[in-house]
Amino acid sequence: MTPGILLRTGATALVLAVGATALHAGDIAEYMDFFEPLPALPPIPAGNSLTAEKIELGKMLFFEPRISGSGVISCATCHNPALGWSDRIPTAVGHDGQVGNRNTPTVLNSGFLESQFWDGREPDLEGQALGPIQAEIEMNMELGAAIRRLKEFDIYHEHFAVAFPGEDDPIRAENIAFAIASFERTLNTPNSPFDRFLRGDEGAMTSQQVDGMKLFVDAGCVACHNGPALTDSNFHRFQLPGSTDEGRFVVTGDDADMFAFRTPTLRNVAVTYPYFNNGSVDRLQDAVQLMGQQMLGQDFSDDELDSLVAFMHALTGEMPAVTIPALP
Amino acid sequence: MTPGILLRTGATALVLAVGATALHAGDIAEYMDFFEPLPALPPIPAGNSLTAEKIELGKMLFFEPRISGSGVISCATCHNPALGWSDRIPTAVGHDGQVGNRNTPTVLNSGFLESQFWDGREPDLEGQALGPIQAEIEMNMELGAAIRRLKEFDIYHEHFAVAFPGEDDPIRAENIAFAIASFERTLNTPNSPFDRFLRGDEGAMTSQQVDGMKLFVDAGCVACHNGPALTDSNFHRFQLPGSTDEGRFVVTGDDADMFAFRTPTLRNVAVTYPYFNNGSVDRLQDAVQLMGQQMLGQDFSDDELDSLVAFMHALTGEMPAVTIPALP
Repeated sequence: MTPGILLRTGATALVLAVGATALHAGDIAEYMDFFEPLPALPPIPAGNSLTAEKIELGKMLFFEPRISGSGVISCATCHNPALGWSDRIPTAVGHDGQVGNRNTPTVLNSGFLESQFWDGREPDLEGQALGPIQAEIEMNMELGAAIRRLKEFDIYHEHFAVAFPGEDDPIRAENIAFAIASFERTLNTPNSPFDRFLRGDEGAMTSQQVDGMKLFVDAGCVACHNGPALTDSNFHRFQLPGSTDEGRFVVTGDDADMFAFRTPTLRNVAVTYPYFNNGSVDRLQDAVQLMGQQMLGQDFSDDELDSLVAFMHALTGEMPAVTIPALP
Repeated sequence: MTPGILLRTGATALVLAVGATALHAGDIAEYMDFFEPLPALPPIPAGNSLTAEKIELGKMLFFEPRISGSGVISCATCHNPALGWSDRIPTAVGHDGQVGNRNTPTVLNSGFLESQFWDGREPDLEGQALGPIQAEIEMNMELGAAIRRLKEFDIYHEHFAVAFPGEDDPIRAENIAFAIASFERTLNTPNSPFDRFLRGDEGAMTSQQVDGMKLFVDAGCVACHNGPALTDSNFHRFQLPGSTDEGRFVVTGDDADMFAFRTPTLRNVAVTYPYFNNGSVDRLQDAVQLMGQQMLGQDFSDDELDSLVAFMHALTGEMPAVTIPALP
């Protein structure tokens, strides 16, 4: 266990003394200080104001399979609302059944992340949105072709015009990204038992879940899993057994980034299995044990594992109520 | 124009005199007698009573991609709720991107059809439901594997048990079909302008749509497109330019069935393009013209086409309000 942990909360970095001597069983408030309830919305970037028109258009585009080469794959294929806005298979299956090498991250609360993709190669959702459309093993459509496809429909002309008023030719790549990112920023899961507990509803978590929360702090999990989405959005080296993925190194070429992946959010972790960059671990308790061993040098006991897993179940929030759009 | 048309309405066959001499512009009521508003529910088969439990389970199975070989294709992939419960591409794209040779029929109102598939090879939705799961170019999963997959989830054990009470081993193929068919029987689109017009709301259709309705009767379209779903569920020979599909002949081996296809429903036809067995016709007016030429030996004028197409737009009903299920 690390006695001093660098904890980043928003823009503030602070060193907190963590340990059995610093915190006692009754000091729930001090444990709770490590966390914050999920806000209703993530930060909205200055360059892409959040409007109802963009959200509505973004929803249409998110569910639009005709901006894929096959005509049947949309963002919602892998980020499936029925499956925690992910796919619950080890690694993504895309165009012509091609299998990728990374697990699909959930879109839920992704607006709270400070970098996108497992390797953080895009800084924000706007940067992320256009990647899978073009990726040959995912949706496999060139942006020019996607734009031409959208322009075939009057209703897209109308929706882009109202979402991006004053533009002569609003159906363009940047606006597709703006709209999809805007929709995604609404896909948050507030009011989990954990959030309600943090807001003062002591009965919202079971005593086992509270024990898990304490252990989560005491053991040091919170060093990386902090902030509203329980991720520092930073990169940590971690060699998953069987994985040859070089992770962040692919982006930076920096040896220090070899096998480093962005800390995933733990929000809704119980419903976004399987786990890790290659989705090779199905069970949450196995994922927690592996993390304890690799990141903390610690073998959790069965009781500890049960508490941590119970706590993670308390991180499942209210799923966004998204109605299926009627596409043209 | 055929002066005497064999009109099947339910179980009753009757010969009606149709023509300019029999019906006049003012005789709206007589035209309306050819039609019936869409009932709230289709006929429920004696062997598969409709229950809330089966509907809920069926919805889960309909959206469940893990009963496909790839893990990402569900019934909802091709029967996409965002796309009129069809796919709006010429022919279906399934496992590993394989392209089928027939257009995906909409699920909407399919409980009103007296046979399923373009070639009618299954009599009912129960018979239809298991086909695409197993088809190698669609979902590509053996039923045994699908059942094993479902059995991995506690929640499916629970849902099958309450949907099929008293069974020792309810997660079985027949019950999968029963549940999916039950869900599908709820996917109906009542209260179209046409339905409201038939119920007495004279302002529900425009005068052009009313003209289209009359022409639809006078020209003889109603001979095959009748009944609540505007289909006789029968098979008619029709060689679509460019199509080599032998249609119903594949099922019966009867020469009379060569190139015969089941009359498709015209309910929601404006939102279930492209048209015909190979989805080769994009525009509704072109589809109507082609039908006039092939089935009625008639070239519609531009005005007539406009009226008929306007009428068909009046057949778009209220889409079922289906929330996306939370899958395990």
